[in-house]
Amino acid sequence: MSELRKDPVVDRWVIIANERSKRPNATAPTIKSNLEEPCPFCAGHEAETPPEVLAYRDGSTRADSPGWRVRVVPNKFPALASVRDIRLRADSPYHAMAGLGAHEVIIESPTHCLSMSELSERQVEDVLRAYQERVIALHDDPRWQSIIIYKNEGSAAGATLAHVHSQLLALPIVPSEVAQEWHALVAHHDATGRCLYCEILDHERTDRRRIVIESAAFVGFCPFASRFPLEIWVMAKKHSPFFHTIAKDELRQLALMLRQCLRRLAGIVDASLNFILHSGPLKEAKREHYHWHLEILPRITKIAGFELASGCYINTEAPEIAARQLREVSL
Amino acid sequence: MSELRKDPVVDRWVIIANERSKRPNATAPTIKSNLEEPCPFCAGHEAETPPEVLAYRDGSTRADSPGWRVRVVPNKFPALASVRDIRLRADSPYHAMAGLGAHEVIIESPTHCLSMSELSERQVEDVLRAYQERVIALHDDPRWQSIIIYKNEGSAAGATLAHVHSQLLALPIVPSEVAQEWHALVAHHDATGRCLYCEILDHERTDRRRIVIESAAFVGFCPFASRFPLEIWVMAKKHSPFFHTIAKDELRQLALMLRQCLRRLAGIVDASLNFILHSGPLKEAKREHYHWHLEILPRITKIAGFELASGCYINTEAPEIAARQLREVSL
Repeated sequence: MSELRKDPVVDRWVIIANERSKRPNATAPTIKSNLEEPCPFCAGHEAETPPEVLAYRDGSTRADSPGWRVRVVPNKFPALASVRDIRLRADSPYHAMAGLGAHEVIIESPTHCLSMSELSERQVEDVLRAYQERVIALHDDPRWQSIIIYKNEGSAAGATLAHVHSQLLALPIVPSEVAQEWHALVAHHDATGRCLYCEILDHERTDRRRIVIESAAFVGFCPFASRFPLEIWVMAKKHSPFFHTIAKDELRQLALMLRQCLRRLAGIVDASLNFILHSGPLKEAKREHYHWHLEILPRITKIAGFELASGCYINTEAPEIAARQLREVSL
Repeated sequence: MSELRKDPVVDRWVIIANERSKRPNATAPTIKSNLEEPCPFCAGHEAETPPEVLAYRDGSTRADSPGWRVRVVPNKFPALASVRDIRLRADSPYHAMAGLGAHEVIIESPTHCLSMSELSERQVEDVLRAYQERVIALHDDPRWQSIIIYKNEGSAAGATLAHVHSQLLALPIVPSEVAQEWHALVAHHDATGRCLYCEILDHERTDRRRIVIESAAFVGFCPFASRFPLEIWVMAKKHSPFFHTIAKDELRQLALMLRQCLRRLAGIVDASLNFILHSGPLKEAKREHYHWHLEILPRITKIAGFELASGCYINTEAPEIAARQLREVSL
């Protein structure tokens, strides 16, 4: 069973998950992630994953059989899992608790496709809708303080299986990256009565230099302090703390914009990438001051010693240049 | 010229360093770092680097010619550099300033060796002494708020040149990782009158499960909340905020322990690694509450989407198991 441990000095949690070292490619990080097909995520191989918790199917096909377009299953090697005892273990000066959580995999295509940029608009929309449904199914559970949705695409981004997929982790804590961002947004709102991300969007939409695309409800832009070359954030114009409250027509717009961003990126470089869906903490007071958004992080440069030592990133391409490059890609 | 930019929401600085994309391997991250010799860091190729700022030489050889054991040169593609104008640019809602800093490379061997674990005790001691001398030369400069020393060894750790080397960056800011750690140490001292790292060392030395090696002045241990499998920290038993005030006999002991740790690690796995020297902020009040230490971070697992989204690491090996493995290596 895994364990959640907190660094005794800084606000950094670690999941000690011995079980995950048993994954097929976990100990061979320099070897390419599994490119062979069929793989456990391919249609016809449903028995190789835990039973599905959600699937979108055409016609009347049975659960855990072919016929699905998007399929959500518990992670076979979960970092965190359902456990009864979540007592905090205080082994002075340390704090730890049992590795409670929910860890799911969203399989984005029944065929052995390797990149979300190759999916159709409808497929991307199905994937986002699956995220929404799973968050709605989980967010009222009193055990979960935050839900993280993320994608590892390509081995440099940490993927151990190449078949296009993303992951969801429901956590019994608010992790530091979410907490810091949310605290800053609350402090700014307390001081000014405004959302800092709304102000940033206003600035970017006037400035234009870092805008990649804009639609009725969303803006895709390269953030001012981009950590990675070609980093893109997609943000809703309307202030909203939670992704999962998104309306149906906005979900479609988001799918269009996400797919556009990924295809523009793929038009410049064939890179591994992560994306992360930043949504508000679930149970905190003042959580309404969060502003959900999606961050696309191409892993073109490495996270090296300086980044780990300082928390400061070295980015070899200014976001103004990146945005221009991304705008100029012809699709 | 590069630029330091602060994320408008979280405490995260980014160095926008367009120049660095011109490095030989910078845009080919999936290609192995340069393994061929001779390389620009090899003896006889001194003209391929900027002129040295420090070298330890046997006999009376000329600067920037062969005969050196350890050689320190400015980074040819610096992330930050000496500039006159450091005015903060406030382009509301953003803050940025010119990319002021000093970026140096410590070349650890005149021969084309690829790993610090292969260096002799004397070589490791020379390297640590070079760190000390360079910090002493730089730390009184009113422009530098912190000095970060780090190593990228192997391409998964971000190395673009394979020849064994480490780097030093003097910064006009206290970056978030240093600030957070130092704020926590100050808060603990204010509340209890004690250093939290001193308490942790006491606990570890009694507990023993996570100890790798112990000498008169130092402890090498796997930290309770290790981010990476086989992560090792080396910490001085004596409370001291700054690495650069280390005594000569302690420097020798530190070299012995660092080499031991690296060799034990190499006895288990042939992995890329970073190490980072955490030393106190240079100009802050209460800086005496910092406790300097060295962190060895094997890059066996990837920093993936979950880590970037949450700041929480998934570690597939408990530090108690890692420490036992490291203790059992026969050298």
